[in-house]
Amino acid sequence: MQFEVTILGCSGAIPAYDRHPTSHFLNYNGHGFLIDCGEGTQMQMAKHNIRRAKLDHVFISHLHGDHFFGLMGLISSFNLNYREAPLHIYGNEGIEEIVRAHFKHAQTVLRYPIEFHVVHPDKAAIIFENSFLTVESIPLAHRIPTTGFLFREKEGLRKILPEKIQQYQIPVGEIAKIKGGEDFIDGNGNRILNTELTLPPSKPKSYAFCSDTCYHEPILDQIKDVTVLYHEATFATEHAFRAKETFHSTTIEAATIAQKANVGTLIIGHYSARYDNLEILKEECQTVFPNTLLAIEGTVYPI
Amino acid sequence: MQFEVTILGCSGAIPAYDRHPTSHFLNYNGHGFLIDCGEGTQMQMAKHNIRRAKLDHVFISHLHGDHFFGLMGLISSFNLNYREAPLHIYGNEGIEEIVRAHFKHAQTVLRYPIEFHVVHPDKAAIIFENSFLTVESIPLAHRIPTTGFLFREKEGLRKILPEKIQQYQIPVGEIAKIKGGEDFIDGNGNRILNTELTLPPSKPKSYAFCSDTCYHEPILDQIKDVTVLYHEATFATEHAFRAKETFHSTTIEAATIAQKANVGTLIIGHYSARYDNLEILKEECQTVFPNTLLAIEGTVYPI
Repeated sequence: MQFEVTILGCSGAIPAYDRHPTSHFLNYNGHGFLIDCGEGTQMQMAKHNIRRAKLDHVFISHLHGDHFFGLMGLISSFNLNYREAPLHIYGNEGIEEIVRAHFKHAQTVLRYPIEFHVVHPDKAAIIFENSFLTVESIPLAHRIPTTGFLFREKEGLRKILPEKIQQYQIPVGEIAKIKGGEDFIDGNGNRILNTELTLPPSKPKSYAFCSDTCYHEPILDQIKDVTVLYHEATFATEHAFRAKETFHSTTIEAATIAQKANVGTLIIGHYSARYDNLEILKEECQTVFPNTLLAIEGTVYPI
Repeated sequence: MQFEVTILGCSGAIPAYDRHPTSHFLNYNGHGFLIDCGEGTQMQMAKHNIRRAKLDHVFISHLHGDHFFGLMGLISSFNLNYREAPLHIYGNEGIEEIVRAHFKHAQTVLRYPIEFHVVHPDKAAIIFENSFLTVESIPLAHRIPTTGFLFREKEGLRKILPEKIQQYQIPVGEIAKIKGGEDFIDGNGNRILNTELTLPPSKPKSYAFCSDTCYHEPILDQIKDVTVLYHEATFATEHAFRAKETFHSTTIEAATIAQKANVGTLIIGHYSARYDNLEILKEECQTVFPNTLLAIEGTVYPI
């Protein structure tokens, strides 16, 4: 099972040092989900060998440009490449108006449908679900309505033990039922308990994306125990006054959220253009939450 | 006198092979003019050491996304960098509506004024003028209203000959008048003709930007004898049918325009994503117009 995120952009609002505005590409077993789509995202996807065709769902956290100015280019390139499959866009009210203004003046009628899903910025809700994942919105606290996104794997099937299949001569047709939790009745009418035949499924994994936001404890309950938390850390502690002014987080604040939520791994990003060398940001976080990683463009992080 | 253009993006509508959508930065003696602003332009400016602060005028040829999707990011970064100087944007009606839709939803009030100058797409006109340059709009023929731009240096001052200053003991205060074409009256009341004291000014140089357009002879009069012509050549001859369908030009069409207009140098660009190697495009042009160059990103072309 593949469950991994590729960082396409790790910059804060002003791109600098060849860092690009925010975009994460989440791959779940070949199904693509794009989280934010800063300017240049389509070029970053090409650079890092991510095929646009694999993508049907785009989640936009908020309408500050560094989180969605690449959306129009992506939509256009899909169109020029003869896309037919619907594209689902999840985000705050307003995206649709902006997209429609563009295509009106370009006199373009898209070859494929876009379905806009308006996300309520003030209450957590499941905004997407399929057979293997749910996506929840996470209300964040920023200057304008902003939501994070929490990708939770659904509980999988139990794992059948190969040696038991042989031992009890279990027919192929029974295996799916046993994985689903049923007992097995053998040819002599004996009941073999499911617990003897299987192991429990792997613990479901989860990825929480929290950007942009100031330090905001109300998210703790929702993101508790997630496997990987991405949390913005725009500023080092030295510039905490700027974090406060701009409704962003410092390193220590991001790490404190990770520690209080008991997450597995913290990835930080959305670095201010004032930092060329990012090590100071990581080191500050690690004083509070040792398992902190820097979001680096092109890097694939397994969930 | 510096008069040069840096190619920031040379790609057609779908970016490919690390080529970016259209943008040209024109530097006239330290004054910057941006022509088109495809997605990623602000990052390309940084990469090629072009300072945003030098830029006050942006010209947008038309409202297909590959020619202006980078505009919003540029405007935002100016704002985040505390710009105060007005930014002038020249282009078709519609740009203002799109820009305002963005800032409404971002709840952003810019720190600096933007002045939108609507360009009439059907008739050539001088749309900008200062003491050293004029910019004319060039009506092109594309799927939606599109204008090229023609930057013409104004005629400079005559060049005074240093040896004549000494010979006739010309006072410093007289030099500007002589450069402006006046004769000189020496201390004895003798008139020295201007033609004896000066050489004519250099021939004014000019840069014509023509993209996107199909083959369109009506532009020939206006661009006659320009120093450098940029003309799109999206397709090789082999794909002429696609050029026709999409209102673009082939190599041979671009070169024929250059040849008929008697320009000095032709630069081609806006390459279709189907061409990895661009040599075929250049070679086809050179069969008609030998002095053809490929637009290559980061390259500075003197005018």
